[in-house]
Formats: sequence, structure tokens, C-alpha cells
Amino acid sequence: MTKILKNQLNDHFQELLNSSNEEELQVLSSLLKAYDDKKNNKYATYLSALTQIKTRFLENGDYEVLLPIQPLINNPLKMVHGGITATLLDTAMGSLINRVLPEEKAAVTAEMNVHYIKPGIGEILRCVAHLSHRGNSLCVAEAKVYDDNQKLIAMATGTFAIINRPQSQ
Amino acid sequence: MTKILKNQLNDHFQELLNSSNEEELQVLSSLLKAYDDKKNNKYATYLSALTQIKTRFLENGDYEVLLPIQPLINNPLKMVHGGITATLLDTAMGSLINRVLPEEKAAVTAEMNVHYIKPGIGEILRCVAHLSHRGNSLCVAEAKVYDDNQKLIAMATGTFAIINRPQSQ
Amino acid sequence: MTKILKNQLNDHFQELLNSSNEEELQVLSSLLKAYDDKKNNKYATYLSALTQIKTRFLENGDYEVLLPIQPLINNPLKMVHGGITATLLDTAMGSLINRVLPEEKAAVTAEMNVHYIKPGIGEILRCVAHLSHRGNSLCVAEAKVYDDNQKLIAMATGTFAIINRPQSQ
Amino acid sequence: MTKILKNQLNDHFQELLNSSNEEELQVLSSLLKAYDDKKNNKYATYLSALTQIKTRFLENGDYEVLLPIQPLINNPLKMVHGGITATLLDTAMGSLINRVLPEEKAAVTAEMNVHYIKPGIGEILRCVAHLSHRGNSLCVAEAKVYDDNQKLIAMATGTFAIINRPQSQ
Repeated sequence: MTKILKNQLNDHFQELLNSSNEEELQVLSSLLKAYDDKKNNKYATYLSALTQIKTRFLENGDYEVLLPIQPLINNPLKMVHGGITATLLDTAMGSLINRVLPEEKAAVTAEMNVHYIKPGIGEILRCVAHLSHRGNSLCVAEAKVYDDNQKLIAMATGTFAIINRPQSQ
Repeated sequence: MTKILKNQLNDHFQELLNSSNEEELQVLSSLLKAYDDKKNNKYATYLSALTQIKTRFLENGDYEVLLPIQPLINNPLKMVHGGITATLLDTAMGSLINRVLPEEKAAVTAEMNVHYIKPGIGEILRCVAHLSHRGNSLCVAEAKVYDDNQKLIAMATGTFAIINRPQSQ
Repeated sequence: MTKILKNQLNDHFQELLNSSNEEELQVLSSLLKAYDDKKNNKYATYLSALTQIKTRFLENGDYEVLLPIQPLINNPLKMVHGGITATLLDTAMGSLINRVLPEEKAAVTAEMNVHYIKPGIGEILRCVAHLSHRGNSLCVAEAKVYDDNQKLIAMATGTFAIINRPQSQ
Repeated sequence: MTKILKNQLNDHFQELLNSSNEEELQVLSSLLKAYDDKKNNKYATYLSALTQIKTRFLENGDYEVLLPIQPLINNPLKMVHGGITATLLDTAMGSLINRVLPEEKAAVTAEMNVHYIKPGIGEILRCVAHLSHRGNSLCVAEAKVYDDNQKLIAMATGTFAIINRPQSQ
């Protein structure tokens, strides 16, 4: 049965490959890379693999997430899709909190408020998240997204519930 | 040059095909379908094609968006990724408003507030958006997401700025 | 010492009384009534006494708070002050949750999102709060404010943390 | 008719004066001061006069609002009422924007998101508002409230619609 599925997928892929123009092929390449990266655990989710985000702590304790802009994540107006921007902000705030919590705890988003300020265009969106309040049961974070010219693109605040980390996975 | 890219992509695809298990192949199939659907204008963005949402107006004027749950959109805890849920809510509210506006106008999200209430699990998430206020320069909408058992999964409100629709595209 | 304070207050009051026009006297009357009502425990806070809100459960389990519009709560544009509208929404949602919780628990507002839609003018603002989600540690509520003509004036959602009720008071 | 009202108010006042304890008299004093200050245009609204806020621009362009804590603005748990904190945040953000706009323009709150972090206790709450984005039709601001020990008490973001300033009144 897996064999049949593989044959079908290959047929579909050959057809898509033949009918694609160069811009579309770039997207197809992004999709295969995302699939590969998730498969090899370079990313924990397909969504983060699709966005190819890069994360790091800054020296002041804030948390930075870089998002390369590519056709795959754009809306029909050729700007970054608002859902992707929201994902970027949520990921930055949630990851920051999860990284400062003790190992047996996890943070889940209870609430997020996003302001969209300018279109997300250019090469890279840079998101910086800051931990505003660290409580025992609730944390509050804020995050801002900037474009290549350091212009503010979007900003958010979020409330995160601290729970006991589910076992395994 | 396109030829070289096609050969590279095909090599990468064959390699991925050979090394994938059945669950992974289902995701690969979803990725190819999304690419195909966007290519053929069944969806306006790759993100909506990836999520395979289905939309319709309800009789009372509300707007419904159905999102099939699939591994592609899950987080590591096998629940729908919060960024996808935010995208679903934003899409439902924004699409509703764009569909009730005159043709020369468009709505862009100025602000969105999302409450995450329960994990998104099961077969389908159903989002229903309602137009709370229709103004000349600002509209306000609200939306709720339910699971297969009609349990509330998430809810949002949004402020949308009404602009003159950009030409073409 | 209390005697001296009383004399000072009386002097101040007589001076204010003499210099007030009729519209101002109505406000002065409202202030004294609020002070009296809080003193006699008709209201739990000076702020609620100043606003003279009336509350009740509706048959469907929602919670209604009526706010009479008076000069005391207006902004310079002779509309209800946005801070009063926010207070009305917060009070309605928080009171609803506190009334459905067991006696040893209390709800405190963790986060509130308010949309201001139309000016609050007329005789009475009517706020209706609905419990969207009842969790063990977090509750989510939504509320809407209507004017005399049932037009939507404002709406809000809120996240409330459930805590053990502090002793006494 | 004004004479009769004055007599009634005076009777009521004397009765309240006689039956009040010292803590209550402090509140009565605050109420008279607020009434006086609004009457003499020291404050534009009764609500701001009741809260006795003090405002100023900081050197970096941010806007500071100081709120003295007094029994008049507390909730039954002897902390600053959440509605007052929301008013403080809204006032700080809205005043900041109104002060940077040209004279013929005004800002009205379209949406505000408030996070309550710690109880408002002590001598003074200090709110600092920052203009995050200045657009032609929408502005976005953020504000934080600190207690005497510079601990974060609450934070907010807001979306403000820019309108033509209504003529006089």
C-alpha cells in the first residue's frame, strides 16, 4: 500500500514539476526543504519548518526569532500573511517562556493580542520577545516585529498559562 | 537554469520518497496537493492551500470556515498549532468583512485578540465569524472555533481598517 | 482632630454649594449619594457607588449590568468616559464569574480587551456578560454594551484567573 | 428650585458629616476636592478629578501619568480598582497621542488590551505611555503601570482612531 502511495505521489510530483515556472519551483523547493527539515527533526513542527525561523537569546535575556520572507508565506498582496506574523509573535513569546521555565513546566498560550502596523515586506522579519512578568501560574510577554529597515511591522502581548509538562514527546 | 533546478528538485524528491514512512507520506501528499491547489488558483495563498479550508456564508449572515485537522498543521503535542488557529480566526473575520464590503474597498487586520481555550484535536475545526460593527473606516468582528463535539476551542475579536482596494492582483 | 476636619469639610461644602449652578448641583447630589451608598454597604466600592450600576442574572445565565448615564461619568465631549465603559465591562464579566464560582474561590481579571464602537450617550448603558469558558484555573468571558436603542456601544473579552478567596472582608 | 435643592443637599451633607468616621471623612474630602477641581477646570472630567492624576512629558517623548492611591479608588480588597487602572492606561495613551497630533485632529480609543499583573497598592501608581506607531488614520500606543518599588502592576496596548476634532462644544 505504501508502494502504491509512493507511485501516486511520484506521478503527481512529475506532473507538477513539468508544469511549474521558475517562481513556482522556488516554492516547491521550499516545501521539500521544510518536509526534509521536519523529518530530520531540525524543526519541531511542519509550520516552523515551512517558515525556516532561526532563534537565539540576546544578551539582555530577550529572545530573537528571524523569519526569512519567501513567496510561500505571502498573502495575495505579496506581503507576509497575517497568520504567519501572528505565528511568529506567538512562537517568539512562547519559546522565550518555555526556555526560562524549569524542565518539568511548560507554557501554553492563553491569550494573545496582535497589532498589525505595516506590511511585512523585504528580506527578513525580525521578532524580539521580552518577558514582562514571570508568575507561578501565569506569565505575560510582549514582542515586536521589525523589517529590514528596523521599522515596526507588528507587535503583540500574550498571557501564558504555566502547566506541568506532558510526559514524553 | 530551470532545467537544472528541476533535476535537483527531482533528486531531492526521490530521496525523500524513499526514506519516508506512511505517516510522513501523507504529509508529503498534503504538501503536493497544497502546491497544486495554489498553482491552479483554488486557493489565493499557499497558507490557505496548506490548511485546505472551506468557506461559506451561513443563512444569518455569519461566515463559516472549516479546517480539516491533519499532521501537517499540528504542534509537537499533536494538537493544531496555535498559529494555525490564529490564522483560521483572522481568515474567517477578514474574509467575512471583505465579502460584505463594496468591490473597491478592502479590509486589513489592524488588531486581533485571540483566546485559546481547549486543544484543537479531532477531525475538523469549525470557525464562525460574526460582523459586530460595520463602520466607514473601521469594522469590528468576532469569531469562535469549535471542535467535532461543538466544544469551544478558541475565540477572537478583531479590528479591521477599511482601505481602498489596491489595483489588480 | 475629627472635629476640625468636619468643620473644614463643612466650610468647603458651604462654599461649593453657594457657587454651584443647577447642573453642578446635580453632580454634587450624585457624589453625596455615592458616598452614602458606599457607607451603607449598598455598593462594595466607591467606584460602583459613583456609577450607580444595577445588576441581575438573566434567565439564560448571562449577567446584566445597567449603568445610568449622568454628567458625573462623562468625558469633555459629553459621552460616557471610556474608563467608565471599561469598568462596566470588567465589572459585568468579573461579577458573573464570581457569582458562579464556589464560595471559597474568587476571580481576578488577568487580561481584558475592549473595543469601543460608538459614543455612550442617552439614558442608560446596558451591559450583558456571557461566560464563554469555565476552567479550573482560568475562565474566559465576553460582554457587550448597548445604548437605549440597542445599538452596540462597546464589547470586550476577558481572561480571569481563579484564586482562593482571601479571608475576611 | 435651585434653593430647595441646595437645602436638601445641605441636610444630606450634615447627616453624612455627623455619621462618618475619620477614614470616611477623608473620602468625603476627596469627593469635595474632585468636585471643586472639575468646577474650576483644573481637570477636564470628574473622573480625572476624582483620581487626581498628574501628567507630564518625559524627555524621551514618553508621557507619564501619576495616580495617588487613596481609599476612594480602591476595590473591596483595598487595591486599586481594575477599572481605575484601565482608565489610567487609557488616559495616558490617549493623552499622549492627542498631544502629538495637530490641533485640528483628535484621537479616540478604538481598542485597548489590558494585562493586570500585580495588585495596585502603596502610595502612587506611575504610568508611562509610549507611541509605538503614528499613522494617518490609526495610531498604536503601549503603556505600563509601576508601583512605588518600580514593580510592573499592569500593561496595555491600544489602537486609536484619528478623527477631525469636533468643534468647541
